[in-house]
Amino acid sequence: MSTVHLWTDEEVATNARVSAVFDDIRATRQSDFVNNFWRALANQPDILERTWQNVKSVMAPGALDPLVKELIYIAVSTTNGCSYCVHSHTAAARAKGLTDPQHGELLAVIGMASQTNALVTAMQLEPDPAFLMT
Amino acid sequence: MSTVHLWTDEEVATNARVSAVFDDIRATRQSDFVNNFWRALANQPDILERTWQNVKSVMAPGALDPLVKELIYIAVSTTNGCSYCVHSHTAAARAKGLTDPQHGELLAVIGMASQTNALVTAMQLEPDPAFLMT
Amino acid sequence: MSTVHLWTDEEVATNARVSAVFDDIRATRQSDFVNNFWRALANQPDILERTWQNVKSVMAPGALDPLVKELIYIAVSTTNGCSYCVHSHTAAARAKGLTDPQHGELLAVIGMASQTNALVTAMQLEPDPAFLMT
Amino acid sequence: MSTVHLWTDEEVATNARVSAVFDDIRATRQSDFVNNFWRALANQPDILERTWQNVKSVMAPGALDPLVKELIYIAVSTTNGCSYCVHSHTAAARAKGLTDPQHGELLAVIGMASQTNALVTAMQLEPDPAFLMT
Amino acid sequence: MSTVHLWTDEEVATNARVSAVFDDIRATRQSDFVNNFWRALANQPDILERTWQNVKSVMAPGALDPLVKELIYIAVSTTNGCSYCVHSHTAAARAKGLTDPQHGELLAVIGMASQTNALVTAMQLEPDPAFLMT
Amino acid sequence: MSTVHLWTDEEVATNARVSAVFDDIRATRQSDFVNNFWRALANQPDILERTWQNVKSVMAPGALDPLVKELIYIAVSTTNGCSYCVHSHTAAARAKGLTDPQHGELLAVIGMASQTNALVTAMQLEPDPAFLMT
Repeated sequence: MSTVHLWTDEEVATNARVSAVFDDIRATRQSDFVNNFWRALANQPDILERTWQNVKSVMAPGALDPLVKELIYIAVSTTNGCSYCVHSHTAAARAKGLTDPQHGELLAVIGMASQTNALVTAMQLEPDPAFLMT
Repeated sequence: MSTVHLWTDEEVATNARVSAVFDDIRATRQSDFVNNFWRALANQPDILERTWQNVKSVMAPGALDPLVKELIYIAVSTTNGCSYCVHSHTAAARAKGLTDPQHGELLAVIGMASQTNALVTAMQLEPDPAFLMT
Repeated sequence: MSTVHLWTDEEVATNARVSAVFDDIRATRQSDFVNNFWRALANQPDILERTWQNVKSVMAPGALDPLVKELIYIAVSTTNGCSYCVHSHTAAARAKGLTDPQHGELLAVIGMASQTNALVTAMQLEPDPAFLMT
Repeated sequence: MSTVHLWTDEEVATNARVSAVFDDIRATRQSDFVNNFWRALANQPDILERTWQNVKSVMAPGALDPLVKELIYIAVSTTNGCSYCVHSHTAAARAKGLTDPQHGELLAVIGMASQTNALVTAMQLEPDPAFLMT
Repeated sequence: MSTVHLWTDEEVATNARVSAVFDDIRATRQSDFVNNFWRALANQPDILERTWQNVKSVMAPGALDPLVKELIYIAVSTTNGCSYCVHSHTAAARAKGLTDPQHGELLAVIGMASQTNALVTAMQLEPDPAFLMT
Repeated sequence: MSTVHLWTDEEVATNARVSAVFDDIRATRQSDFVNNFWRALANQPDILERTWQNVKSVMAPGALDPLVKELIYIAVSTTNGCSYCVHSHTAAARAKGLTDPQHGELLAVIGMASQTNALVTAMQLEPDPAFLMT
């Protein structure tokens, strides 16, 4: 149960700004399915428009591959403990070609990083001078 | 200032188990430089051996590219707020060829994921049925 | 399913210390409803008494408005990923007059702060001297 | 020491897109001082422009008071453990009129929320039905 | 609903490496019950073997009592907001003799630490020189 | 550099409420040294009194040993990434008898828990029915 209302397609159709974003989501993703994140943001057209524009721009192909971007998204979402986000971006990564062995290695790196992060913090290490930009 | 002692090369030389790990770190990385993380773990040869074996195995080339693994490591370390780890793995990623445009996109994805994670949690969204494995 | 037992009103009635806290919760909030947080803490009367006294004192009107305090509470609970707390304090904020536009702006600020926090940490920025107290 | 270069005013002057953002920051804040966050983002004009537009829009007066928005920002930054962000937004809040008693109450609410978040998570409480939106 | 398949006993029986780990889990714990964490890791025999070896070694009796190790595990899992982990390690602690008064004190310490952590971060305190190792 | 003023002994002497708390800290700990956490809280006598009373009560011997309580405190502080708190409670644990092998095992458990927490979250496991209280 969410803390905000989730807009149905009928409600979306009544608001021009929200409709425009939903149309662009469907066109960009070449799919009719619009997930609940956008249906929740629809309550605030400003945030909806800004978030969609930013997500669309940030996740587009660029210097990094779209699948790599999804792996980074999963890593952040896992560390933040965002259940919805882990589910949605794991599904997105699979849709972009993530294989089981790649998923296994992603989990291994996330787990290893979490462990060494904790060890470093418990030992309160300061960066080696060699790591600092010159 | 750390909460544990950092071993010098002289101290490492006095302990066969610690020396063996340091030798393997140097051989694997083809560099004489051993950073403070390992000098701190040297206090506990068990953890040192286990951690090095695991890191060596997890970060090796596999289904994912070593540079991609570093990006995932940076994403986790940033979200956990581990300063040492962000520094060390950003340096490692640059050594493996990370370009400035790639770094910029990495930052953009980490920032976007952090934002949408927070929005999702504040709205308490439950995964869309379409995201769940079948 | 919780890791501790949740006390029913019948069980509360059997313990004088727990009853006294529940009576004060009902009197302070002018409502018969006592939520599960207090029913769970009832297992440890010491923690129950201390936590209720502290919450009552901290959330009372003062230099900050009670609604503003709820917004701060939601911000912390969201960042900590505490689902129960986001639900309970969003409900509390609505009961204290939170409007939909205010909720939308709260979400926007939480999202923006989460994003810039991550960017700052990934870039390992040190405070500008101008920010430090003089 | 940051993981990216911080742009000086001289370097900013050489890039039209970066200059435009810095000019708008100075005009909006009516101050010549531009803090390191923007000097770091200058390496990626896309992120710089998008982040400044979003921050400017989100932090502007609206349904919530600008000072209240800073308090929410501090709450998120504290929970995320972002040292730079706590410093910069505490300074910003003071510049917008934050008094010492208000700061004290902000700390008290952040501390209390952090404590009850942890208690709730350790006890794995599920939201009371009364909290769920109807 | 998890993002990976959970192996049934029938599936486990078809894979020698996975079977060997499951046999050792059952022998070590002197119980037929193998929880879902291991059934999920079974998808990646490398991670399964490494994680079980490490958990078995780390959680064994040593300089710290096994029950104390479970309390530390619960503290970390609570702070990370890992629901599954709080449930599984609270159950494990009870199986190792955790009493209700001990559980109550564990909760009190976790709550207090979470509160003072937040206060310290909001006030940006630097370690007293007396705390630093000499 | 902190975001609040740290009270000197001379300033403490001018405020009866603050003085009373500092006297009790010194008497309880049988040491003249009062660390910066209390000097920072002195700005808000209400929070100072409440926090000291709570810490004194929670950390006292009870169903759990004072050293075990410090280990739990370190585990939470590490996971929250609170540098000051890791330093101060590691120093407190050493003063209460923490040995190097115990510290090593504490680190190992914190690291292992952090790793498995992340794996569980990335795989989105739901608690086994056997873990739920009956």
